[in-house]
Amino acid sequence: MNMSNELENIAKGALTASRVLANLSTETKDAVLKDMAAALLNNKAAILKANKKDIVASGSKPKVFIDRLTLNEARIRQMADALLDVAKLRDPVGELIRGWDTSSGLRIQKVRSPIGVIAIIYESRPNVTADCAGLCLKSGNSVILRGGSESLNSNLAIYKALNSAIQKHGLPGGSINLIKTRERKAVDILLKLDKYIDLVIPRGGEELIRKVVRSSRIPVIKHYKGICHVYVDEWADLNMAEKICFNAKVQRPGVCNAMESMLVHRDVAVRFLPGMLKKFSEAGVEIRGCPLTCKIAKSAKRATEKDYRTEYLDLILSVKVVEDLDEAVAHINNYGSHHSDSIVTDNYDEALKFLKQVDSACVYLNASTRFTDGNQFGMGAEIGISTDKLHARGPMALEELTIYKYMVLGCGQVRQ
Amino acid sequence: MNMSNELENIAKGALTASRVLANLSTETKDAVLKDMAAALLNNKAAILKANKKDIVASGSKPKVFIDRLTLNEARIRQMADALLDVAKLRDPVGELIRGWDTSSGLRIQKVRSPIGVIAIIYESRPNVTADCAGLCLKSGNSVILRGGSESLNSNLAIYKALNSAIQKHGLPGGSINLIKTRERKAVDILLKLDKYIDLVIPRGGEELIRKVVRSSRIPVIKHYKGICHVYVDEWADLNMAEKICFNAKVQRPGVCNAMESMLVHRDVAVRFLPGMLKKFSEAGVEIRGCPLTCKIAKSAKRATEKDYRTEYLDLILSVKVVEDLDEAVAHINNYGSHHSDSIVTDNYDEALKFLKQVDSACVYLNASTRFTDGNQFGMGAEIGISTDKLHARGPMALEELTIYKYMVLGCGQVRQ
Repeated sequence: MNMSNELENIAKGALTASRVLANLSTETKDAVLKDMAAALLNNKAAILKANKKDIVASGSKPKVFIDRLTLNEARIRQMADALLDVAKLRDPVGELIRGWDTSSGLRIQKVRSPIGVIAIIYESRPNVTADCAGLCLKSGNSVILRGGSESLNSNLAIYKALNSAIQKHGLPGGSINLIKTRERKAVDILLKLDKYIDLVIPRGGEELIRKVVRSSRIPVIKHYKGICHVYVDEWADLNMAEKICFNAKVQRPGVCNAMESMLVHRDVAVRFLPGMLKKFSEAGVEIRGCPLTCKIAKSAKRATEKDYRTEYLDLILSVKVVEDLDEAVAHINNYGSHHSDSIVTDNYDEALKFLKQVDSACVYLNASTRFTDGNQFGMGAEIGISTDKLHARGPMALEELTIYKYMVLGCGQVRQ
Repeated sequence: MNMSNELENIAKGALTASRVLANLSTETKDAVLKDMAAALLNNKAAILKANKKDIVASGSKPKVFIDRLTLNEARIRQMADALLDVAKLRDPVGELIRGWDTSSGLRIQKVRSPIGVIAIIYESRPNVTADCAGLCLKSGNSVILRGGSESLNSNLAIYKALNSAIQKHGLPGGSINLIKTRERKAVDILLKLDKYIDLVIPRGGEELIRKVVRSSRIPVIKHYKGICHVYVDEWADLNMAEKICFNAKVQRPGVCNAMESMLVHRDVAVRFLPGMLKKFSEAGVEIRGCPLTCKIAKSAKRATEKDYRTEYLDLILSVKVVEDLDEAVAHINNYGSHHSDSIVTDNYDEALKFLKQVDSACVYLNASTRFTDGNQFGMGAEIGISTDKLHARGPMALEELTIYKYMVLGCGQVRQ
């Protein structure tokens, strides 16, 4: 069988399975999730052995790559715990979102329902395999997983464990699917199967995501990048501003919700910047600033236009002194990535204006941008953060993996 | 200036305008809508003159095409009235969808907000120009309109009228945009401008929509077709079933929510079909049936596999006798278009099973499928019916032209 046929069969099987998963009871889904967790622990040795193979084959890759790829006992336990956590979350399927009667006497019920078949394309992080399988199952969707080729052995071992729980409960074989070939062509073929697949979620770098968008006929939910700002307003509590900016930049610089650009109102720049930049300097943060910033901090480099559009994911920060709130908002809307942006201010009018006018998934008042996260938001999980403006925006968890259907109850109504 | 640059400038202008429109008060938007309606009436003569030009140039087109293209005084008044109706609808922007506190003491508010820039690609129906401009304005979005080339003169005249209201209120020039070239290439260029445009809604035949999906990098909400079913269950009130099926097929056969396929439980087939098919025959409906149907109705043609997948949009109906509810559900999920499907039954268990298991945007119990419509649903308008399973499903109106943002209120929180 050639690859196209094989992938089409997988997608068909996923569609068939999705019809069964959509109608499972919460109790059944939670029992399967618990057995998936147990199966990971029971198959620890096999998973670690497979992971070892992947690590050895990836010997020449950068350290951060190897770190993401590596599993150990603690990480397998974390994967299992994550599945148990998902079992504890509220089942979104079947929720009555809204109900009303029409003038023709129909009762319309807008009921939350699964999306159907979800494909997830991700890099070599084996934990994503278990996380995504669990979230899709709980939300009643079947899933097609395509992980980075360097993690294929690990993924196969994890998949085998998860699938044993699926089989134990007599669920369809197409409930969870793993693409077992390393060939890149498989992704292109998959992305044309819009007859069977309802949604693609790419998880990884911007390049991967752009490639998926270019070739997909299936709707894609994207998370391009996080160029997050903190704007220190003229009415800011400068002590608070210092703590928030420091946290947003330094606490974990390599993630999408870290601050990449700091904007400061000109009236507080001279009071605020020297201390702030000194703190950053002590933490090893490289500053790339506007002319005024560079005048205040002699060690700062001049920021280029490109700096303000760059997601460093590192201890580097671009800094700009702005005239007023309007300039800050315009800068964020033009240079940012519509992810997470914060204002520090004690002025109610300014705060309101910022929250309304900044066109980002998450807009903050007096808090660090680092809170943009499914768990921090209280969703109990996270399958990604959408920078799109369709279907879902910001942190995505179970509810964001659902859509709705209209159930319309009549008693013989016909259209006039 | 070449076409690419021109279109990019339009898209840029639309993005700039969208930031202004997103923050307009309901009062301002409604005042603009009323002035748009007035401008249509005031420019009646110019619009009719332009429309005449389009009609003359389309002389050789089919009658139904000319009918859709043609404007007259009554139709211009209808367009104006539709804008006044939109002014009366509740503004969805700013609605607090949900709010909660997190363990870190943050207050999270999920607030409904406009999508941004919406492109609408449609066939030669000039009324769509005014309808879509109105709905996008009220939902705080800027719009880029690309109508069928045969209606360009009409669209230009309508656009000019609408835009005079935009200007009168000092709104940005990019609020409503009309693509003024007939060149097909313009659509392809537009669909690559995902940097500026957030959503594409194609309105028209399946071919147009598939073309848009193939070349778009921008998210698309699709309405492929309506292959709608009515299933007459063994527990159906057969009088009610006859009325519903007749209405679903005959009342307006040329629309997407008309029944294209009728399924009948084998235990009632012999009692139900003779009378039903006679009624259809009297109304000029051609029947294409399964073997049993053809045995009952001698005049019926045999249905092919393809018949069950065809949206006739005409007085033709495919009919199939099924063994039970499971077969009916499986048939609908496999052959249907996930649009609107109805069961006629007095059996509660069967009804529930059908409503849950049929994977369609609208599932009906004891009512005609013809009710799938924004106005019939009480939404007050309709910009399309989505057969997609992302963002919006079924009839789409103002709320479906919005997304949300998270406004997060803190008092100095930083991430641990």
